[in-house]
Formats: sequence, C-alpha cells, structure tokens
Amino acid sequence: MSISISRPLSLKDVQITDDFWSAYIRLVREVVVPYQWEALNDRVEGAAPSHAIKNFKIAAGLETGEFYGMVFQDSDVSKWLEAVGYLLETGADPELEQLADEVIDIIDKAQHKDGYLNTYFTLKEPESRWTNLAECHELYCAGHFIEAAVAYYNATGKRKVLDVACRLGDCIDQVFGNGPDQINGYDGHQEIELALVKLYNVTQNEKYLSLSQFFLDERGKEPSFYEKEFHKRNMKVHFPMLDIVHDRAYSQAHVPVREQQTAEGHAVRAVYMCTGMADVAAATGDTELLEACRRLWRNMVSKRMYITGAIGSMEHGEAFSLDYDLPNDTAYAETCASIGLIFFAQRMLQIEANSEYADVMEQALYNTVISGMSRDGKRFFYVNPLEVWPEAIGKNHTVNHVKAERQGWFGCACCPPNIARLLASLGQYIYNIQGRTVYANLYIGNQASVDIEGQQVKIVQQSQFPWEGLAQFQIETEKEVAFTLALRIPKWCREAKLHVQGETISLAEVCTNGYAYINRTWQPGDRVELVLPMQVGRMIGHPNVRANIGKVALQRGPLVYCLEEADNGSSLHRVFVERETESEDETRFEDELLGGIQTINVRGKRLESSGWGDHLYRDNAETYMNKVALKFIPYYAWANRGSGEMTVWVKEQ
Amino acid sequence: MSISISRPLSLKDVQITDDFWSAYIRLVREVVVPYQWEALNDRVEGAAPSHAIKNFKIAAGLETGEFYGMVFQDSDVSKWLEAVGYLLETGADPELEQLADEVIDIIDKAQHKDGYLNTYFTLKEPESRWTNLAECHELYCAGHFIEAAVAYYNATGKRKVLDVACRLGDCIDQVFGNGPDQINGYDGHQEIELALVKLYNVTQNEKYLSLSQFFLDERGKEPSFYEKEFHKRNMKVHFPMLDIVHDRAYSQAHVPVREQQTAEGHAVRAVYMCTGMADVAAATGDTELLEACRRLWRNMVSKRMYITGAIGSMEHGEAFSLDYDLPNDTAYAETCASIGLIFFAQRMLQIEANSEYADVMEQALYNTVISGMSRDGKRFFYVNPLEVWPEAIGKNHTVNHVKAERQGWFGCACCPPNIARLLASLGQYIYNIQGRTVYANLYIGNQASVDIEGQQVKIVQQSQFPWEGLAQFQIETEKEVAFTLALRIPKWCREAKLHVQGETISLAEVCTNGYAYINRTWQPGDRVELVLPMQVGRMIGHPNVRANIGKVALQRGPLVYCLEEADNGSSLHRVFVERETESEDETRFEDELLGGIQTINVRGKRLESSGWGDHLYRDNAETYMNKVALKFIPYYAWANRGSGEMTVWVKEQ
Repeated sequence: MSISISRPLSLKDVQITDDFWSAYIRLVREVVVPYQWEALNDRVEGAAPSHAIKNFKIAAGLETGEFYGMVFQDSDVSKWLEAVGYLLETGADPELEQLADEVIDIIDKAQHKDGYLNTYFTLKEPESRWTNLAECHELYCAGHFIEAAVAYYNATGKRKVLDVACRLGDCIDQVFGNGPDQINGYDGHQEIELALVKLYNVTQNEKYLSLSQFFLDERGKEPSFYEKEFHKRNMKVHFPMLDIVHDRAYSQAHVPVREQQTAEGHAVRAVYMCTGMADVAAATGDTELLEACRRLWRNMVSKRMYITGAIGSMEHGEAFSLDYDLPNDTAYAETCASIGLIFFAQRMLQIEANSEYADVMEQALYNTVISGMSRDGKRFFYVNPLEVWPEAIGKNHTVNHVKAERQGWFGCACCPPNIARLLASLGQYIYNIQGRTVYANLYIGNQASVDIEGQQVKIVQQSQFPWEGLAQFQIETEKEVAFTLALRIPKWCREAKLHVQGETISLAEVCTNGYAYINRTWQPGDRVELVLPMQVGRMIGHPNVRANIGKVALQRGPLVYCLEEADNGSSLHRVFVERETESEDETRFEDELLGGIQTINVRGKRLESSGWGDHLYRDNAETYMNKVALKFIPYYAWANRGSGEMTVWVKEQ
Repeated sequence: MSISISRPLSLKDVQITDDFWSAYIRLVREVVVPYQWEALNDRVEGAAPSHAIKNFKIAAGLETGEFYGMVFQDSDVSKWLEAVGYLLETGADPELEQLADEVIDIIDKAQHKDGYLNTYFTLKEPESRWTNLAECHELYCAGHFIEAAVAYYNATGKRKVLDVACRLGDCIDQVFGNGPDQINGYDGHQEIELALVKLYNVTQNEKYLSLSQFFLDERGKEPSFYEKEFHKRNMKVHFPMLDIVHDRAYSQAHVPVREQQTAEGHAVRAVYMCTGMADVAAATGDTELLEACRRLWRNMVSKRMYITGAIGSMEHGEAFSLDYDLPNDTAYAETCASIGLIFFAQRMLQIEANSEYADVMEQALYNTVISGMSRDGKRFFYVNPLEVWPEAIGKNHTVNHVKAERQGWFGCACCPPNIARLLASLGQYIYNIQGRTVYANLYIGNQASVDIEGQQVKIVQQSQFPWEGLAQFQIETEKEVAFTLALRIPKWCREAKLHVQGETISLAEVCTNGYAYINRTWQPGDRVELVLPMQVGRMIGHPNVRANIGKVALQRGPLVYCLEEADNGSSLHRVFVERETESEDETRFEDELLGGIQTINVRGKRLESSGWGDHLYRDNAETYMNKVALKFIPYYAWANRGSGEMTVWVKEQ
C-alpha cells in the first residue's frame, strides 16, 4: 500500500523566467558547471587538484597512475553529471552533452563486470571492498552516481548511464541483505537510500525500493554493525582523527531510525537519511516510518534550525548539538545541510500539502543556500554563520571553521556542486501535482506545462519575489479545464490577498494547511493574482535559544537580513536597533548595491567606548549611546565586499 | 644595578589567624597535602595512578619497573614538596617532615652524578636528554624542583635538598649558554626562569640569575630554536596532536620577550614567564625588561582578563585569544593561570607599590583560585567558566572542556597541587617590606613579626574580609618605633575611611598609587582601623567585550558573585536583574549556606516561554516577564550543590 502523494513537475516542463532566479541558473550553466569541470580535471590554477576524472580514467584502464583524493572523490564527478543532466533537461547544449557522454563512457569502462563502481577501492584497496561502510562512503558514492544517472537519463533518454546505474544497483543488491552470504550493514553517510528510490521510480524495479528500505531498517540495530565490521577488518580506521565507529549518533546509527526522537549527528547525513525515509514511506505506505519523519522534522525545525534555514550547530562532527542550542558565531550551518533540508521538505510536501514544508524550503533556499555562493559563482561558503567577527578567526579556535570570505574550492568539495545541482533543478520545487490539483509552492517566475489528467495546460507565473510580494498566474489552455490551483500562503505574510479574474477571494474560506485552494473551471487566459505584502518582521527567537535573547532579526518576505560592517562600521555587537516606534522601518531598493537589493534602513543606537581608557570592568559606569542609521542587507548577499563583521541577530533596545 | 624593591615577609613571620583563610590553610594541611601524597603513591581508589613517587624510586635504583605518566610527572612531587615546605615553615609537623626527608633522599639518589635530574629521561630516553625542549618540560620540571628545594630549605634549614637543587642548577648552567658546546635554547614551558631567581636569592650565586636571564633572552630569537632542535632530532614529536614546534606563540616564542606587545599563547606559560621577567628585571635593574613586563601586564589586565581574575579565553592551547575576547561559556580560565597571575602581580608589586597589582592578586585569589577547590578540599576545577549550561557539555563540543562539577584528580594534575602551594604560602602575599615601610596588600587576619631595620615589631591584623570591609591593625612593640604602614585602598571601595588611634585620617592626603601611607612613631598598642565599605557593585564590562553587553556582574568587596540554578532555577539566560532603582540590593549572611556566605538578593525578571508551542521564531511576538527574586552567591562557592547552571554575567533590564 502506498501513500497518495503529489509529484513535482518534470524539469523539462518548467521553464524558469524569473528576474531573481534566472540569473542564478545562468550562473550555474555558464560559470559554476564549467568551472567545476575544470576543477575535476585539475585545470584550476591555485586550487588543490581534484584528480576525480583522472581516477576514473585510471580505473577504466585509459590512463596510468594512482588514485588521489578523498575516499569519496568519485561523488564530485557524479554531482557534476547530475547538474549537467538538469541543465540539459531545461535547455539543449550539445557541447555539454558530448562532454557528459565522454565521462559516461569512462565511468562505464571503470565499472567492474559485477557492477561494482568505485575508483578508490578499485585502485587503492581492491581487496577491501565493502569492509569499512562506516567510514569509506562506498554506498554514498554509489548513491550520487545513481542520482546523476537518473537525472541524465531523464534529460536525454540515453540508457547507457542508467544501465551502469542498474548494474551497480544490482551489485549492491547482491552484496547486501539478510542472506547468509550477504552483508547486513549500511553506509556511514546516507545517500544510497534516496538514490535507490529514484532508481526505483525510473525503472519501476521494486528491488531497488526494497534495498533502500533494507538500508534504513538495518541502521542503528544492535549489535552495532560498525563495531562488527571494525573488528572483522582488524580495527583498521580510515579517518584516525574521528571516531566514526564508536560515535554512532554521528551517522544516526545510535538507535533504529524508526525510534529516533531527535535530529542528531552530522546534519547532512541526517537530512539525506530523512529524505530517504520519506521516500520509502511514501512508496510503501509505511506509516511508522512516516511518523518518524514527522518527528525528526518537528524536532529539526522547531528546536534545531537557524532562522536562515541552516542546520548544524557545531563544527565538531558538522553536527546538531542539542535542543535550542543555536550559537550564531560558532555555528556550522553547512550549505549542503540546508540543501538536504530542502530535499527532506520537498518529500514531506509531496506526502502532505502543508505550507510549513514549503516555508522551510523557501527559508533555506533564499538564505543559506544562496549565501553559499558568491555573486560571480566562483567562490563558496561551506559554513554559513549568523555572526562573524573576522579578527577572531585564527585567534580563537572556536570559530576557526568559519570564513569571513567565500573560498575558491574545497579539498572536500561537497558544497559547490551541491548548490549547482540544486539550482539547476530548481524547476522541480515550484509545483507539485496530484490528480487535478496543482500546488504552487514557490513564487518564481516560470512557464509550466501541466498535464491535467490528459489535458495540456500552461501556467504562466510572474513573480516579483523576493523584493515584492506579488505573484500572478495566467492559465493558458486551448479550451476550458477544471482543476484546482492551490497556492501557498507563506507564514511570514499576515495580510495575503487573492484575486481570481479580478474578484477577491476570501482566504479564510479556501485555505487548508497554508494552501489556498482555487477550484474552478478555468477559461483560457484566466488570471490569478496573489498579493503577499512584505512587511519588515522583527523576528525574535524562542526564549530557550540562549544566543538570541534581547535580540531581533529582520525578515522581509522570505529574506532574512543582516548588518554588515561595510554599511554599518565594525563592532556590530555594540549596535542596537531602536525598539519599534510609530515610524516604520524604511525599505529602499538600491540598484547599484550588490546587484540590486532591497535594503532595510532602521534607526539604531551604538554603544560608545569612549571614556573607558584602560578599564576593563567598571562599577555603575555611565554608558553612552549615539544614534545611528542602520542599513540591513539580505543575508544571502553578505561577504561580497571583502572581509568584515556581520550579524543577523541584533540587540534591540 | 638592581631596582629597589620591597620584599614579602618570610612565611615563618606571618601567622594567619583568619576566619575565612585559616579554614582553607587547614584544609591544605589536613586534607589536600595528605590526599596528594596518597595520589602520588597511587593509593587513591578510582583515581588514575600517578606513579610519580615510583618513578623517582626506580630512577634511584630502589625499585624496578618502568616510567609511567606524563613527561612532566616529576613536577607533581615537587609541587607537593614545595607545599610541604610552606606548611613546615608555618607550623612544625615532624611526621610530614620525615616523609619529605625520605622523598628528598630518594630524589637525591635519582640525581645523576652530573646533577641531571628527570625520571622520564633517566628511565625512558636516557640518550635524548635536552633534545626536545619545546615539548618535554625538562627545565620546567627542574624549575619546580628548585622551587620546592628553596621552600623546604627555607622552612627547615636542611641543606641536602638545596644541594641537589644547586647541582641541578649547575648542570643546567653547563649545558645551556652561548658557548660552542652549549645549547642556546629554552624550555617550551617557562618555570625555570623564576625558579633560578629563587635559587639565586637563597644562594646569592649570580650564575643562577644570569642563567635565568639567558633563558629569557634566547626566547623568541630567530631562527627558531624549536625548529633547529626539531630537525636535529629528525622531526620526532612528543605530542603529535599539538603543533608546539611551529605554533611558537603558544609558548611565547614568537618574538623576543622584550618585544612582545600582547599576552599570547598558553596562559600559564605566559604568566610564569612574566614572573621570571619581573624577577630578573628587579634583580638586574633591566628597565627594558621591566617595561615589557608592564606592557604585558597592561594588556592582560585591561584587555584579556575575566572579572574573576581568570585568564585564558579558549581551550585550544589553554590560551589567550585576542583583545576583549572573553567568552563566558567557552572560557578556559585555568586555575593555574590565575595562580601564575598572582605570582606576576606579586613581583610587580615588589617593584612598584601600586594597588593595581594587589587588586588583581585579590581578584584572582578570592574568585578563580578558590573556585578551583571544593569545600572539602577533595575536588578541583581546572577550568573556571563564568557561565555553564551543563546539558550542553558533551553535546556541543565548544564546551566539552568545561565541567559542571569539580573532579577528583586529573591525569595532568597541575591545578590541585598548585592551589595547595599557593594557599600554604599565602602568608607571603599579605605584606611587603621595604626599608622602614611595611605594605599591607591583603586584608587577612594574622600576626606578623616585622624587623624594622633591626627593631622587632609585631603587627596584629584582624580582618572581617571578605564579608565586611573592616581591617584593624595593632602595633605591638617593646618601645616606640618609627615606620610607615602603607595600606592598600582597593579599587572596589569608593568610601574608604582610615582611623589611627581613633583619629580619622584624610585619605586624599596620604594616598599614593592606591596605598595610604601612615608615617608615624608608633607607640606600643597603637591601633589602626581601615573601613572599606563593601557595597554591591553592578559591574559592566568594556563595550568591546562582546559577551557582556547589556549584562552586569555583581561584585561586593573582592568577591564576584554568580547566579546558580540551585537558588534560581534553570534557564539562567532568561533571567534579568532589574535595573537599579531606589531600593538597595539586599545582602544577607546565611550561616547555613555553603559554609556561611553573604548572599546578595536582587529583584529580577524572568522571560517566560509559555505560548511559544512549537514556534522557534516569531514576528512581533509579545514576551512575558515574571518578577522573580534572585539570589547571588559568591562565585568561589559555586558547584558545591551538584550539577547545575551558573552565570556570573546577568542581563540587566
């Protein structure tokens, strides 16, 4: 029994035509993916060599040499290929397609006869296949390849890459299971679970779905699989500085997934796992698994998520810490983790049309994900702190993982290609369709072709997001068509207005779980206008969040704002926004600033340090505040003007 | 040319008779030192074995076996012996003296013919003597032994231990220097520098003073001595997890000591170094060195010291970080570092009678140092944070070095014996004498015998510190005597009053640099009364201290206060003290609480979390405050009632 779910529209059916997002997608196509290709081929000057393509060539017998890189180096090629798949699905590019076909030929040759595919083990430890699941990312790499293969197959219809993926899936299916000669274990880094469901969706071969379920169900069982394989391989460890084998919560293997109450450990692994859990729950109708998804979601978003949609409160283990522990300066808040959170949200949204999931998707997308990339598409953040004091970096080691400026490329290069594949596939997140209902989740300008039970409908969306809260829809169809258009009403909007063909609709009457359902027989050219006034929200955090007491964060529409040193001087910890008075915070669109952004200009005060001399502590001292004008910019746009202080949460007084 | 300095009175001349401190000293005599002896002999159940005495016995040829412990294990025995010396100097204890004599016999036998003394190298790497100064603490251990020897010799007049120390000093003097066959290096952990000056003081042999100066002057020279010896020993490292060789600032070897502008690196090393620098400057008249001391002092106390007199802002390297970086929760604030700060302050105070040095001495002593030990003398803090959220420990790794309860004994057992030796020698910190001037630095009840240029005078001090600001002095002398009694007026007191024989003296007229000079011909029985009203100070931190904006710390007299969960419930981050109104904060002496303490009872508010449900962030939300009564206890007394939250800095509103 499967759960009835909505499905995203195919990428090829959604053409993004958005002032804000088209530029990002163009950047991915024109800069990020080409740059990434150069990086994978070790042609980026000054960057650490990747060697990832070379590893495949050597494994394919096309070149000689030795494996170089991280144990999960293969996945960089897969993420590139996956992004290429999405780009090709939304627009032809014969040159790029030829490059990809060549890469696929190499990968095909690198695959073993039995379907095994992993250049690290092929070249470096051929006898040690599948002996260190806890640390060595074999299934993780397999999962990324499968995701790439599905994307490329969907885009091009070329089976070669899918065949490689199926052979790899079959190999894994042979090796893993509860049979007497099989391994009843699971990978330290979740990814295979969600990938196998994609392979199942495209092939309809149920064994891939069962295999995904098997991996989820084995996870966290007693006795520890990690310990078993650890002793079997004579206690050899791959990452001696970590203790992955024994720190089971790091990879969510501390209890069975169905029993997990809180989001623990490495944040990326956690959300990839949850995505797989939701996929399997939807496909199998496993309500217990779905309940676990809901529980982990609830814990994550109501106790362990930054206002920027970031997750992972600490550098150690790149991990969750404990409820309400959301330090702004020592945060990890990895770009990849927010991308994974979007995956998880998307899957939950398919299962239940609740705007909460889309709200979080939007929150992560407009803030942490695009904060992860510089305006020129060439530099990236791995860590997305909410407060930065650049001078402290390198001097106080609690913030040494933080960078005040985006970096060119990383030794462990997970985030840049993850941004690329997410942005390249953004069209998949805008609409879901279920029967005769089309859900609009994100307000991004596009033209979508929708099949309403056999009848072709074109929905043209125009959006002024994120600067103004206006989204307009026009239904283009040959003849009238009856279907429901369900529009998300974001939580940040308190005074939404909905007009259908100029007529105002009472939202109270049509809203369920944050979606406004417009059920009608549409005539060609019918128009819907959704007005979502964007007021500046002075957000406060739950009183249990220690870092945010007495502070506010400004949010307008989906965008969280921040103060930067470039606009407001240094020592941002001494800055206060004035408690709200009659006057409204002034928003202003500044064309020339950071590619054109809406700034928020607020009256503030600055605590002065004059008169302190060499005193460090004083009794009953007078303190002086000067009035200052504060300018907030969208968080995503920070750190594009050199190194400087930044803070999202600002004291209010 | 030496600088004219004041000298502390000998320990044997100061008998402490103080309600507050006598109990501590008794604890050291009756509990800490005996316990430490058991620990050194591996007889403490449940504690990691020390093996320190056994190492000496094996090195002495009295037992067989192998070395066990840290490379600096010897120093634990020395610190014990030093504390014993101080205890014997203030009160006979034949049994303890016999124990010590036996230990000295063993140490004497463990010493090599050439004077070398170190059980680690003797037993484990005899061929590697002096090859890894950066990491292996050979001179550090030597320094601690010399300090112990001087203390024991001063107490007992027995030369044997001093002879061992001199032979060791001579050995070092032969090995180190700028001669062609000598090593021109210095120890990674400063200690030998100050110890050699003690040896010089007791022997008047100038070579020890020169050797100390040599070590100071070599430090930080280019090219790096650490690198040189590192390559010479084929790049062998002792602590592979650290990078002591290259992180030169960690051990203050980044620039020559005279050029150092800021307090950097490992805080204990820094203050031990500064102590030695001040010692050498005083003895040699080296004003450049003295200027460096003043500069480092100024940087430390005006930009890098916690209000509790603690130093060391981070766990990484147990080190200073940067100016004004004083996080309360991730602080290192090691007990030993505050003890070293007291050493440094004492030396500076000898050079210049400025109350600032004694103020810091008092601040460190009454807060961090005694916070380091539990009320029963059996448990110790290494790290003394100013804010603790016990639930986060073990979950957020930025606070994993913090303990919410004192621990029995440590693998690296530096702090407990350091507390013991400081408290056992507390009498050395109360008075300094220079010519006909007696400086009273600390208000601790005692009877002191003072030699005023040949005339014996007894000064009887009675003090109600730290609970009330009253110190009374009676001069007991056979016949009248002219001398100056200089009394420190603490910075925390704004309305000090001074009465000599009942007559009020105008402080403005007699105060210089924080000392009130009473110059008179004293008659037998003359009395002085110093009234230092202790009001509750609401201290604020320099606006550049990010962690303390909007917060106050309560201080009364020398004591810094804190809120504990035991009195005020949990979630102390949600507690505010009411901004000062007409009503005074109420102090109350509570006999039954924590051995009898003065509490401060303040009106406060608590931010409530009701109504938040699953929300994590809200716009324009109403916040609710409830009035609460807050009880502050002295910081030193925290964590004696189980694990719970604590905070020194509290929000004010």
